[in-house]
Amino acid sequence: MTFREDGEAALDWADAYLARVRELPVLAQVKPGEVQARLPAAPPDEPEAFAAVLRDLDEILLPAMTHWQHPRFFAYFGNTGSEPGILAELLVATLNQVGILWRTAPASAELEVTVLDWLAQLLGLPSGWHGHIEDSASISTLAALCAAREAGGGRRTVVCSEHTHSSIDKAARILGLELRKIPVDDEFRMRADLLDLADACAVVATVGTTSTTSVDPVPAIADACARAGAWLHVDAAYAGAAWVCEESRWSQAGVERADSLVVNAHKWLLTPFDCSCLWSSRPEALRDAFSLVPEYLRTSDVDAFNISEFGPALGRRFRSLKLWAVLRCYGRSGLQHMIREHLRLAALFESWVRDDDAWELCAPRPFSVVCFRLKGDDERNERLLERVNATGEIFISHTRLHDRYVLRLALGNARTTEEDVRLAWDVLRREAAHR
Amino acid sequence: MTFREDGEAALDWADAYLARVRELPVLAQVKPGEVQARLPAAPPDEPEAFAAVLRDLDEILLPAMTHWQHPRFFAYFGNTGSEPGILAELLVATLNQVGILWRTAPASAELEVTVLDWLAQLLGLPSGWHGHIEDSASISTLAALCAAREAGGGRRTVVCSEHTHSSIDKAARILGLELRKIPVDDEFRMRADLLDLADACAVVATVGTTSTTSVDPVPAIADACARAGAWLHVDAAYAGAAWVCEESRWSQAGVERADSLVVNAHKWLLTPFDCSCLWSSRPEALRDAFSLVPEYLRTSDVDAFNISEFGPALGRRFRSLKLWAVLRCYGRSGLQHMIREHLRLAALFESWVRDDDAWELCAPRPFSVVCFRLKGDDERNERLLERVNATGEIFISHTRLHDRYVLRLALGNARTTEEDVRLAWDVLRREAAHR
Repeated sequence: MTFREDGEAALDWADAYLARVRELPVLAQVKPGEVQARLPAAPPDEPEAFAAVLRDLDEILLPAMTHWQHPRFFAYFGNTGSEPGILAELLVATLNQVGILWRTAPASAELEVTVLDWLAQLLGLPSGWHGHIEDSASISTLAALCAAREAGGGRRTVVCSEHTHSSIDKAARILGLELRKIPVDDEFRMRADLLDLADACAVVATVGTTSTTSVDPVPAIADACARAGAWLHVDAAYAGAAWVCEESRWSQAGVERADSLVVNAHKWLLTPFDCSCLWSSRPEALRDAFSLVPEYLRTSDVDAFNISEFGPALGRRFRSLKLWAVLRCYGRSGLQHMIREHLRLAALFESWVRDDDAWELCAPRPFSVVCFRLKGDDERNERLLERVNATGEIFISHTRLHDRYVLRLALGNARTTEEDVRLAWDVLRREAAHR
Repeated sequence: MTFREDGEAALDWADAYLARVRELPVLAQVKPGEVQARLPAAPPDEPEAFAAVLRDLDEILLPAMTHWQHPRFFAYFGNTGSEPGILAELLVATLNQVGILWRTAPASAELEVTVLDWLAQLLGLPSGWHGHIEDSASISTLAALCAAREAGGGRRTVVCSEHTHSSIDKAARILGLELRKIPVDDEFRMRADLLDLADACAVVATVGTTSTTSVDPVPAIADACARAGAWLHVDAAYAGAAWVCEESRWSQAGVERADSLVVNAHKWLLTPFDCSCLWSSRPEALRDAFSLVPEYLRTSDVDAFNISEFGPALGRRFRSLKLWAVLRCYGRSGLQHMIREHLRLAALFESWVRDDDAWELCAPRPFSVVCFRLKGDDERNERLLERVNATGEIFISHTRLHDRYVLRLALGNARTTEEDVRLAWDVLRREAAHR
């Protein structure tokens, strides 16, 4: 077979998958080990046809996937591998650029800086920040906190709230930093009045926490950072996307004073995973932390950006190509349309919960995530979650708030319709009735 | 336009690119800033067609690329985005799986463990090692050294040779570890007799160093590590691929005693970038260093592997799909065929240099990289490098050995033929004659 023929088959498969994904069970209906048991124990000695790979993808792997692209995937933070983004990944792999220094992939380096500048404009960020792409928010945060540690004159503590994402814990451990967690208020926002910045090299403020999408009081935190000379890192991995709509920019207050900011384009900005955008108003601090150019990589392109000097990895994929394709094929209006629709659907679902006496809301809803539960005890809600997810009709996740088990419905997939959200509510009420 | 139609156009583009890449200049013939100057300063408000993206890819980006897929790309370590790997990336983006916990992407988690086991078999590694995929060797090494630090009982020094890759320096800096560099012998191998393991939590031994592909004396280093209780990390990012051929396994001596090992499938194993394979004989140490499961991610799948607990990132791409496609579509014999052909071509080029009095070889050649120079001073060789790369006919890189400027010709692309290597030699001699 040729690349063209195998490519047609792969493209057919992808096209059919996107068309039929809404008929598949959202959550994988398998037990641990089932896939491994069906795969050969040893690799083949002789070449097989690509068609055999597609066949096993269907028969062995597909039933064992949790379908993030299913329009009724309402767990964690949903995402969308949009069509232009998917096709751009085909091109990225074809070109197989490795961004080490500028000269190894000039188009990649320059497009990355430009596209991050475009996105900064779309989100209304201050002009002049340096942006680049990391694979995940975990690594973006690691990079930012590493720069903060190096700039921190020996201070070894990172401060965040009890609702900060676990990736901050992980980054602090890797970097050998202590973590101090500040309590939250009744709406799950960091208590800025309790901020203790003794020995702090950095504070992580979150806009859109993982459990409830609460928004930390960034202006007050920025004040405290300025007084203490601590680095302010803002984690807006999910919610930062909402800033493409001006009516959501209330949540951006204070962010203009950040030293670094992460927004994941692979969450709510239609870009296939991975594409985590990291901006900094102090890029020279990132460079001080990471730059290290050995002789065998030295070139004379002194004026160009070598993006590998701003983060932990040396070789970097041409990820900007997919973000570029997405921003062009959706435009500002296309991004706004999706975000606004998700906010509308979340408000609608929230209103249904509010109006039904058997249910209760458990947190304010700043963006597209609704925290709710069935009135009654934790066990009842836990069993309900297991039951609705086992149907395969929807997939939702949970969290714990005020020591209670709470359900989360998160809107984030561009293919989700009002009908899908209504079906989720129907499934929840139906399964709640079967005690 | 539909996904199918845009997809056809993207596939046509990819197919045509692979067919015509050998006619393009290998090294980008642009100056820093030229791409940025041609890109719009602001993103579009309204959607554009995907065809417009393809058009600008051709007109603006393509002339500014260094073509890693060009068969006469002989710089650094060459790579190949093979056809099955490219098409698998299309599928990866379509499925858009995010591996956080087992249940979020069961097929991804289990395929990754299985395929790393397959590759371990192909390379002749000990059975029972736990393997997973990171994006780059930089991150694989960071993960391994983080585990070593945590297991090291407070010891804070990493030991490596003067010829170790710069990513070790970077990882040590991030982890807050001191680096001790041991001198090399005349053939650029770590002087095991000079090993000083005072306060060492880890030693990094390299099989296939970046400058000359020299092989550190791993058995002696493993002895020293065993005596000192230090973690042995083996960096075989490039050369480990050669172990698919039994005649290259002389360079694997001692590796069976490693605590961790990195081999990049995206270098010499036909997998599009990124796919760095990290194995460990002490996976529980990696888990101790990285595991951190918060309430909102807790599930009952206690028996399954949650690969995010073995490395720094939380969300992980479905990278195993492309490695699986490559291993199946090439099979053991296909991989061996490519590696043997590259070793043959490197030996051939080496013989031409050896037989020409105007040139000299500068290092032994264990694998597919030849280190050589024109007899004469550094300036002459530097000017020669600039001149041959400016032709666009070939792209080679350089290093510094015994304080002399040395040229490197590295074989690593599957599309390279004997004719391409001969043309490289012709270009080098032609440009050397034009003083």
